[in-house]
Amino acid sequence: MGAARIMAQIIDGKALAKEIKDELKTKIHGLVNLGHRAPSLRCIIVGDDPASHTYVKNKIQAAIDIGIDATTITYDATLSEDDLIAAINSLNTDKNVDGILVQLPLPGTMDERKVCNVVSPEKDVDGFHINNIGQLCLDMPTLVPATALAVIEILKRYKIETFGRNAVVVGRSKNVGMPIAMMLHSDKNHNSGLGMDATVTICHRYTPPEKLEFFCRNADIIITATGVPKLIKANMVKPGATIIDVGITRITDEQGKTKLVGDVDYDEVSKIAGAITPVPGGVGPMTVAMLMHNTFQAAQRLRQKESNIQ
Amino acid sequence: MGAARIMAQIIDGKALAKEIKDELKTKIHGLVNLGHRAPSLRCIIVGDDPASHTYVKNKIQAAIDIGIDATTITYDATLSEDDLIAAINSLNTDKNVDGILVQLPLPGTMDERKVCNVVSPEKDVDGFHINNIGQLCLDMPTLVPATALAVIEILKRYKIETFGRNAVVVGRSKNVGMPIAMMLHSDKNHNSGLGMDATVTICHRYTPPEKLEFFCRNADIIITATGVPKLIKANMVKPGATIIDVGITRITDEQGKTKLVGDVDYDEVSKIAGAITPVPGGVGPMTVAMLMHNTFQAAQRLRQKESNIQ
Repeated sequence: MGAARIMAQIIDGKALAKEIKDELKTKIHGLVNLGHRAPSLRCIIVGDDPASHTYVKNKIQAAIDIGIDATTITYDATLSEDDLIAAINSLNTDKNVDGILVQLPLPGTMDERKVCNVVSPEKDVDGFHINNIGQLCLDMPTLVPATALAVIEILKRYKIETFGRNAVVVGRSKNVGMPIAMMLHSDKNHNSGLGMDATVTICHRYTPPEKLEFFCRNADIIITATGVPKLIKANMVKPGATIIDVGITRITDEQGKTKLVGDVDYDEVSKIAGAITPVPGGVGPMTVAMLMHNTFQAAQRLRQKESNIQ
Repeated sequence: MGAARIMAQIIDGKALAKEIKDELKTKIHGLVNLGHRAPSLRCIIVGDDPASHTYVKNKIQAAIDIGIDATTITYDATLSEDDLIAAINSLNTDKNVDGILVQLPLPGTMDERKVCNVVSPEKDVDGFHINNIGQLCLDMPTLVPATALAVIEILKRYKIETFGRNAVVVGRSKNVGMPIAMMLHSDKNHNSGLGMDATVTICHRYTPPEKLEFFCRNADIIITATGVPKLIKANMVKPGATIIDVGITRITDEQGKTKLVGDVDYDEVSKIAGAITPVPGGVGPMTVAMLMHNTFQAAQRLRQKESNIQ
C-alpha cells in the first residue's frame, strides 16, 4: 500500500443526461421553428402509488423542459382493464400523440403484459411491446427500454470499447438485464447500427457467488442491475474495468439516515475500476434522458411515415 | 497415458428423435381415433435449391410417418413476394391448416423477415415470427425455433443439470445461438415452464480465441453452432462437460472423401467430455423431431382456442 492510487473516472450521468436533453431541445426547437408540431408524450398512471406519481412527474417535467408536449393522464385504481385498453387505443389512433407510456406497476387486477401489448409499437416509448422486444432481440432498429438504452448510451458517449471485450450483465430482468445483454453482443453486420460485439455473460440470482466473482473478475465491463447493495466488491473487479451500476436501493446507514445506494461497493470499487457510475447520479438521470430520446425517435418515425404516405 | 480413459456418453440424437416421434405418433393416433382431424403441416418452398428440397422432403416424410397431414407447396423462383404473402395468408385463414413452414432461403428478391412475419404466429412452427421471438425472449410459452428446441430437449431428456451451472453458447445466430442462450438462462419463476437457470456466456466470431478457450474451459455445458470445423478442441473442454454440437459442415478429408463434421474435434473431445453429441446423428435428427413437436403443439393450441370459442 502507500503507493498513489489512480481513482476511477466517475461517469457523470447527470451531466450526460443534460447534454442529451440539450441536444434534443435544440432539435425540437429547430423542428418547431420550421412549423412542425412538437413531439408529444402521454403518460398514463393508474392509482395513487406515490413513487409512481413521482417518477411520472419527473418524466413529464423533463419532457416539458426540452419542448415536448407532455401530459399525464391519471385514472383511479378502480379503472377496469377494458377501460384502460380503450383509453390506450384512443391515444394509439390520435395523430397528435407520438409517445405513450403506461406507468408500471398497474393495479393487481390488470395483466401488465396484455396492457403493454395494446400500446401501438410505434408509440411504445418504454419499448415493452412484444414486437419491440422481438425487434431488439433480432438486432433490428426499434424503441429500446430506456434504462437499458441509458447503459448503452453511457458506454458509447464515454467511448468504452466493447468489441471483443468481456462484459458481464448481473441481473436478467426483461426490461433491463436482458436487453442490455442483447445489445452488448449485437453483431455489427446486423442492421441495428449497434454492433457492440462484446462477449457477454449473463449472471443472476442463481449464479453461485464464487462463479459471479469469477466472471466479474474477468470482465472488462460489469453492468449490474439487481437491487442487492454491495453485491459487487473490489475483489471482484479487474483493475481498470468499467462498472455501470443500475441498482438503486434505499438503505438506512449506521447513523439512522436513509440513502440511495447501488449494487456496487462504490467507495472500494472506485479505487480499482477504470470508470464507474455513482448512485445516485449515474444511470438514473440517463434513463429519463433516453425516454426523451425515445419520444423524439417515435415522433420522427411517425412524421417520416406520414410524409411517405402523403 | 496408458491409463484407462472413461469415454463420454454419446448422445444418440437419432434414438431420441425416434422416441419423441413415437410419442407424438401415439398421441396423434389417439386423437384421430377419437374422431379428431390429424394435425396438418404445409411446407412452402420457392425455387429449386436442391438442399432446400431435400430438407423439406425429410420434414414432410417425418411428419407423414407420425400421422401428420403434411404436404409441400412448391413455387417457381419467379413468384412475386406479394403472391407468396397472399399464399401464406390463405393458409393462415385455412381452418384445416395448423402449421406453416416457409423454407429458407427465399429468392434474393424477397424480404425474408417480412415474409416470416406474415405467417400467423399461432401456425409459425419455425418460431421465426417476431411475436414468437419476443415471447421466447420474455420467457413466455411459445413456438421455439426447432434447432434451439432440439438442444434444450436433449439437455432435458439426458437430465443434464443446468441450474447454477456455467453454459457457453458459441455462435449468436438469431434462430439458433440466441434462442438457446435465452432458454438456458430462463428464470424458473417465469411462466415458460423452462427455468433452466444456467449462467450463460455468449461467444461469437469476435470473441478472441484465448477468451473462447477460457470460457469453454470453465463451462459445464458447451453448445456450439458456428459451422467452423474443429473449433472446439480437447484442451478447451473441462473434464466431464456436456458438449452439444449444432455445427454441420461438409468437408473433404485426406482421402478425398466428403463427410459431414460438426464444430467439435469429436475424436479428442469425446475422450474428455462427460456427454457429447455426434455429427451427424446428434442435433440434426432432433431438429426434425422438434419441428414435429411444434406442429403438434400448434394444432393442440388451435384446437383448444376453437373449443374455447365454441
